[in-house]
Amino acid sequence: MDKKIKYNVAIVGATGVVGSNIIKLLEERNFPIDTLKLLSSARSKGKKIPFNGVELTVEEATASSFTGIDFAFFSAGGAVSKELVEPAIAAGALVIDNTSAFRMDPDVPLVVPEVNPETANNNRGLIANPNCSTIQMVVALKPLYDRYGIERIIVSTYQAVSGAGIAAINETIEQSRQVLAGETINKDFLPVGSLPIKKQIAFNALPQIDKFADNGFTLEELKMINETKKIFGDNQIKVTATCVRVPVIYGHSESVYVELKEDFTIDEIKKLLANSPGIKLVDKPEEQEYPTAVDTAGQLPVFVGRVRKDLDNNKGLNLWVVTDNLIKGAAWNAVQIAELIAYDCK
Amino acid sequence: MDKKIKYNVAIVGATGVVGSNIIKLLEERNFPIDTLKLLSSARSKGKKIPFNGVELTVEEATASSFTGIDFAFFSAGGAVSKELVEPAIAAGALVIDNTSAFRMDPDVPLVVPEVNPETANNNRGLIANPNCSTIQMVVALKPLYDRYGIERIIVSTYQAVSGAGIAAINETIEQSRQVLAGETINKDFLPVGSLPIKKQIAFNALPQIDKFADNGFTLEELKMINETKKIFGDNQIKVTATCVRVPVIYGHSESVYVELKEDFTIDEIKKLLANSPGIKLVDKPEEQEYPTAVDTAGQLPVFVGRVRKDLDNNKGLNLWVVTDNLIKGAAWNAVQIAELIAYDCK
Repeated sequence: MDKKIKYNVAIVGATGVVGSNIIKLLEERNFPIDTLKLLSSARSKGKKIPFNGVELTVEEATASSFTGIDFAFFSAGGAVSKELVEPAIAAGALVIDNTSAFRMDPDVPLVVPEVNPETANNNRGLIANPNCSTIQMVVALKPLYDRYGIERIIVSTYQAVSGAGIAAINETIEQSRQVLAGETINKDFLPVGSLPIKKQIAFNALPQIDKFADNGFTLEELKMINETKKIFGDNQIKVTATCVRVPVIYGHSESVYVELKEDFTIDEIKKLLANSPGIKLVDKPEEQEYPTAVDTAGQLPVFVGRVRKDLDNNKGLNLWVVTDNLIKGAAWNAVQIAELIAYDCK
Repeated sequence: MDKKIKYNVAIVGATGVVGSNIIKLLEERNFPIDTLKLLSSARSKGKKIPFNGVELTVEEATASSFTGIDFAFFSAGGAVSKELVEPAIAAGALVIDNTSAFRMDPDVPLVVPEVNPETANNNRGLIANPNCSTIQMVVALKPLYDRYGIERIIVSTYQAVSGAGIAAINETIEQSRQVLAGETINKDFLPVGSLPIKKQIAFNALPQIDKFADNGFTLEELKMINETKKIFGDNQIKVTATCVRVPVIYGHSESVYVELKEDFTIDEIKKLLANSPGIKLVDKPEEQEYPTAVDTAGQLPVFVGRVRKDLDNNKGLNLWVVTDNLIKGAAWNAVQIAELIAYDCK
């Protein structure tokens, strides 16, 4: 990308839950923007969205939307990315894609700025933003990986419905209201909008996020497994995952078990986590201090608490990792990638 | 215990969430009851509860309540058990205690009828009912333990609020209503009624169940670790646990990772689970079939689904284990123990 003082930026999926957080963060971070182009499906075309005190009008995203664009953020689903990412690259934009469409392509870097920033520059006009549940885990594990090495990871997630978009948020709120009122509940969307069978999310826990692969894992679980290895650039790490949707609106929590390659003390680990970028350690059991989804929603850091040594394995460590899935899990990581490129190039 | 055709039964904590399920199950199972004595704190004394078409009046539990009683179920909290269990034993009752007061005592059997029924008869008038989250896990793991051996268990729980009693249920419902109405929420009870700091449970996940021990684990987590070893009679099994309260009313879910001592195939495992006592296998990913809390609430079995082999460890197995915490997790396991004794002795 050419060095510039200010950049022309486009957001595909500007009216979605991630897109609106990207807009907010670009404004808050004072990203050096010349023009901002908000793009969406035909359905949302014409909507007005404020940015830096000006009302911008959402336009329909097409292959010709990207002329003169420097940075194009994509968060409108894999199908839209598969259609419009290549035209955006061809028009000269650097695409930061929040979908799973290109994440595992060998020629596309999969970047978490706290973990593998060095991979970002080697791109063909496309950088992939990892899955929300992967990002927060690798941020928490990066200092442990560097200091001790990681033998295996066993993770169980508690994922917010906002990860499935506005329809899932609305369904959770409406179903909760119906349960409290003693009404028959409507099941229209979760666990997966495009699949036929629907399940109750209100006052329930659903062990299905995304479709099932033939091996019995969900695609979400496979994302955590495969993306973690790619981001660390290490196929020797053993990873297994169980991904669960819970009736939380914002904020993914994760119970992460990690077996390190060396023995450790909890004091060392806590000191390391407290001093690592992107992490906020919240861990005072004696004062009942630990991170929870509602306390951390809307904030940038990955919060880590409940740091405990496995009583039966001196290399085993339990962590409780929480962040806002729409912020560090999506929009903030994408904006961080843009900052990495924009400020490195200046 | 003397062999009898019918037994005199007492329930301490008869008005609580577990006690009321014991009453219901004794009726449904047609347990051979001569007289049923319902006991509670002074506060609930005088309440009327129907049993087999007759209205019974709740009496205050005292040390002299147990004369002539054959079976005494205790589920009124550890403090009440510590006060009244010994008088009940002295009066000749067999106590089945649902609290944690005596579970780890070496001379008290800790019984899950599908797992270690043989330990029940060697009692001094007291049998302990394990913790809810332990029971469902060991039922699911028993056939795997027998067939392959178990090297280690790493479990993360998704526990219903009913495990903390009626106050926690009411708080979850009221807080959910307040969040939906945009009102300020009241935080009065969870995570732990007797501790000073309260947290929001509605639309949240709380990684604290019971108090913290000095090693950073909660007492709930230590119960899962220690009780599992005692029930299997095997201190070599490595166990670690993260226990989390979620806004679910009835039904604990658990993400259980188990490393077996031998390689296995998923078909073998599924066949084994499907044919083991107390387990119902619900596992057809291609039809989005897996157990969830709301679908299994009120039922007796331990439901198992999401059976998957760790892609990076041929001895590693992931399971999703769900049961009603008040039924198999408490009342049903206690009634099963009584049946074991009553029918063995006839």
